[in-house]
Amino acid sequence: MKRALTPTLFAAALCTASLLASARDHVVIQVSDNDPAKWNLALNNARNVQADLGMDNVDVELVAYGPGLAMLKSESAVAQRIASASAQGVGVIACENTMKNTKVERSQILPGVKFVDAGVVHIMKRQKEGWGYVRP
Amino acid sequence: MKRALTPTLFAAALCTASLLASARDHVVIQVSDNDPAKWNLALNNARNVQADLGMDNVDVELVAYGPGLAMLKSESAVAQRIASASAQGVGVIACENTMKNTKVERSQILPGVKFVDAGVVHIMKRQKEGWGYVRP
Amino acid sequence: MKRALTPTLFAAALCTASLLASARDHVVIQVSDNDPAKWNLALNNARNVQADLGMDNVDVELVAYGPGLAMLKSESAVAQRIASASAQGVGVIACENTMKNTKVERSQILPGVKFVDAGVVHIMKRQKEGWGYVRP
Repeated sequence: MKRALTPTLFAAALCTASLLASARDHVVIQVSDNDPAKWNLALNNARNVQADLGMDNVDVELVAYGPGLAMLKSESAVAQRIASASAQGVGVIACENTMKNTKVERSQILPGVKFVDAGVVHIMKRQKEGWGYVRP
Repeated sequence: MKRALTPTLFAAALCTASLLASARDHVVIQVSDNDPAKWNLALNNARNVQADLGMDNVDVELVAYGPGLAMLKSESAVAQRIASASAQGVGVIACENTMKNTKVERSQILPGVKFVDAGVVHIMKRQKEGWGYVRP
Repeated sequence: MKRALTPTLFAAALCTASLLASARDHVVIQVSDNDPAKWNLALNNARNVQADLGMDNVDVELVAYGPGLAMLKSESAVAQRIASASAQGVGVIACENTMKNTKVERSQILPGVKFVDAGVVHIMKRQKEGWGYVRP
């Protein structure tokens, strides 16, 4: 009898795991515009999510790609806010595909920023893991 | 035997519940631009979703935050369409974080509009509940 | 005993099916702006997703609606890239609601493009099926 139940228990365990995974909150915020107003809006979004849900209860990532990569360059108009967001535990992430295509080196990117091969693929991965997605 | 099955049945029930929850359709439409063309597009989206799926088979919410809040102010260029959408059962929702930051009172917002603390957190909540998300 | 287990097994099977369904990657990319820079960004996104995950491991769809429909008209500035994307297995999809509202005939749309009644409803359907959603 125990043997016969194994697949059921396995499927149930998978389901339970997937349901438990969604207890904590997570959101990935996309920045794909070269527009400081959008950058500030995305940073406000990150801050408000942490304030509303409690910094320890939610994972927040900002993913910049395409024309949005400019938000993360050393000369960015929001460099100080990026530093604060990182210090507050927001994952700030740059797309290396965009960097390659636009000849931007890691040394031209603000400190504290992390890198992924492809911003869009990272966003897909997060959605698959059950993260929310917001595109300001 | 019955006792031993309880966790399995519980997990299965949770899964079934989560699957059944997705039988009905739901979508949250985000408005975060101060751009009447975008507002009209979002309102068209809401109308088309109701027309295509049947008004009684789908829940539609419009969430306005950041620069998009202007869509819901008394002097909005789409005030009449907001009234029609509400009358057709679309949930029209304003972000109170944005209102606080831009010193907008509830009295300056169109009648019928509902309020949430943080528009982005509401969008995350809906996604977690299995709603679709569209950002026109 | 077998009978009593049936609902459990059924729920478990449904769950397993839904979990297996998410093993392959899928993404629907929305185009709702009349802006060739956005069209190129969306096409770059589709190409990067295929390059990063492997063309055979991921389904990619581009859905154009509202002002974004212009991307798929014969005179589109990205007509050649649309042809390449189709040839590479990207599903390129036009919204017939938008076509009706803007009096665009199928004959005015690029070859290889597919049609759905309502672009937004198609996006909702894909999200419900577990596809990722990206709005460049």
